Amino acid sequence: MNKLTVQALQWTGNTLKVLDQRQLPDTCRYDEYSDAAGVAEAIATMRVRGAPAIGIAAAYGVVLSAYRYYPAGEDGWRQCVAADIEVLAKSRPTAVNLFSALDQMKAVLDQPNADPAALSACAEKIHADDIAANYKMGELGADLLAGAKGLLTHCNTGALATGGYGTALGVIRSAYKRQPLPIYADETRPWLQGARLTVWELAQDGIPATLIADSAAAWLMKSGRIDWVIVGADRIAVNGDSANKIGTYSLAVLARQHGVKFMVVAPTTTIDWAIDNGDEIAIEQRHQNELLPACYLSEGSLVSAWNPVFDVTPAALISAIVTERGVILNPSEQGMRQIQ
Amino acid sequence: MNKLTVQALQWTGNTLKVLDQRQLPDTCRYDEYSDAAGVAEAIATMRVRGAPAIGIAAAYGVVLSAYRYYPAGEDGWRQCVAADIEVLAKSRPTAVNLFSALDQMKAVLDQPNADPAALSACAEKIHADDIAANYKMGELGADLLAGAKGLLTHCNTGALATGGYGTALGVIRSAYKRQPLPIYADETRPWLQGARLTVWELAQDGIPATLIADSAAAWLMKSGRIDWVIVGADRIAVNGDSANKIGTYSLAVLARQHGVKFMVVAPTTTIDWAIDNGDEIAIEQRHQNELLPACYLSEGSLVSAWNPVFDVTPAALISAIVTERGVILNPSEQGMRQIQ
Repeated sequence: MNKLTVQALQWTGNTLKVLDQRQLPDTCRYDEYSDAAGVAEAIATMRVRGAPAIGIAAAYGVVLSAYRYYPAGEDGWRQCVAADIEVLAKSRPTAVNLFSALDQMKAVLDQPNADPAALSACAEKIHADDIAANYKMGELGADLLAGAKGLLTHCNTGALATGGYGTALGVIRSAYKRQPLPIYADETRPWLQGARLTVWELAQDGIPATLIADSAAAWLMKSGRIDWVIVGADRIAVNGDSANKIGTYSLAVLARQHGVKFMVVAPTTTIDWAIDNGDEIAIEQRHQNELLPACYLSEGSLVSAWNPVFDVTPAALISAIVTERGVILNPSEQGMRQIQ
Repeated sequence: MNKLTVQALQWTGNTLKVLDQRQLPDTCRYDEYSDAAGVAEAIATMRVRGAPAIGIAAAYGVVLSAYRYYPAGEDGWRQCVAADIEVLAKSRPTAVNLFSALDQMKAVLDQPNADPAALSACAEKIHADDIAANYKMGELGADLLAGAKGLLTHCNTGALATGGYGTALGVIRSAYKRQPLPIYADETRPWLQGARLTVWELAQDGIPATLIADSAAAWLMKSGRIDWVIVGADRIAVNGDSANKIGTYSLAVLARQHGVKFMVVAPTTTIDWAIDNGDEIAIEQRHQNELLPACYLSEGSLVSAWNPVFDVTPAALISAIVTERGVILNPSEQGMRQIQ
């Protein structure tokens, strides 16, 4: 197993240390949380982001809640922890991993013999399973990339976005290890996850990376430099429609027009088996101050911003969805059901 | 004629005042130049940008050169001015307006009775003609937009990019005056001309504008909010292929896939009648520090950037090219020749 060069989350046993990713790459600082409300705040403010990572963080948040309330009367502690689970569930709306992790924690909480140790074991298992899934996906995805001449990725899907190693970036790591090839990263406005996190992570691993403006991706494709776009996902519907960072849909349309293949890499915890297609996915709109220069934020300003931070890529534009349970080529509900 | 609310260039008669657009919207400061080298530097460093505006600035730079050298011996001043024209021609490579303006100035310089007054008259005419062309294009373009429900523009093509009023933004101004409608602007990385300049200019004119991340344009199109993308150009080939700010090609591909129409607005000074198609257009690559966080700029860094600042949109993806001499629908060489 590869050494993890960077960790978004460090569980100390009774606190959760969260790398404040908003300050990368300039400052590498961990904030330490000892209650669920703090973890929810860390997720909402995007100190930690990335669908798998926020699921794991939320799970540890539940453990912190249990530590806090367990000494309370017979059933009171369960109600308090359940209330904290509600708070954690409201921290971000789009990534389903958050809800699936909280569902797992809630199931443990509801068991008759539930205690903090059982919840802690569950959270640590969610974390470990995610890392294991990433390594598995890395190999499966790299298998598809034999002979590729260049790759483009969007946002950050690496160790910083997951339990470790990464989804799309895990595939890129595994592929590069087999055969070095040019890696391009979109800078990914408005948060610049590509510029601040992805190229930084790759450099930590000794992998050279080339940053481009998001709007240069089409011109890069036209130049013939890449033959695959590889992205993560925040929620995948049963038919394969995939929500991911704003700009992913754009890349998928452009890839199809340029004969470039399009890979989505996500653990099965990202699949929402309860929704038929992408129309049912809630798309988070974040505050316009993430885009607008400060001078436009005054009352009565004629300038506003439209800031959806995810979009949905239809399955028809996806060449392959890579999960730890297998690869679905040309995804459809039938293919998706085979890994359920 | 509309009042010009903002001016990129102010000719005082013996100096050129250049609005330093790199500091907008926070600071509105003019730098004053009294020689051609200074003007060339102002263009190269993008204090002034936009194809028509840099052509006009360069023309005034030639006048400043003439003022400086005219007292010199019989023919010596012409050689000195010609040398300054060479310097100005090297300031940016892609926009053809720079070269066409300098060609006009050189033709005046080569006349037997040339003097600074004649050169000054030529530069002022280039400036005035550009403004007049913008108003004409504004009306012609607005005619095409009857009934439009929403518009998206890229980069800045307004008063700041031209002699005044604007090309694509002039069309948007004229269309909005006839019938208010939603205007969306891409922020336009890496220089953020949309975020810093376009929405600022529109607000100065009382026109509400909504800023989006460049990568959100496809999702905006899919939402059905816009039916036209309207952009400027830095150079147009005889077949209608159009070079413009990086990201324009991406928008054109996406527009075609979403049934959104695509308008290029540029004065005939932007047409390069010497080149058959867009393959012959030199695409400026700017320094990677425009994209890269400072920590990646050290020697031996594994992180680099690919920073082409223009791309070329094939004529086949353009619904209409609007010039002051008329509109070319579904542009082809035949259509282009009709306005030559």
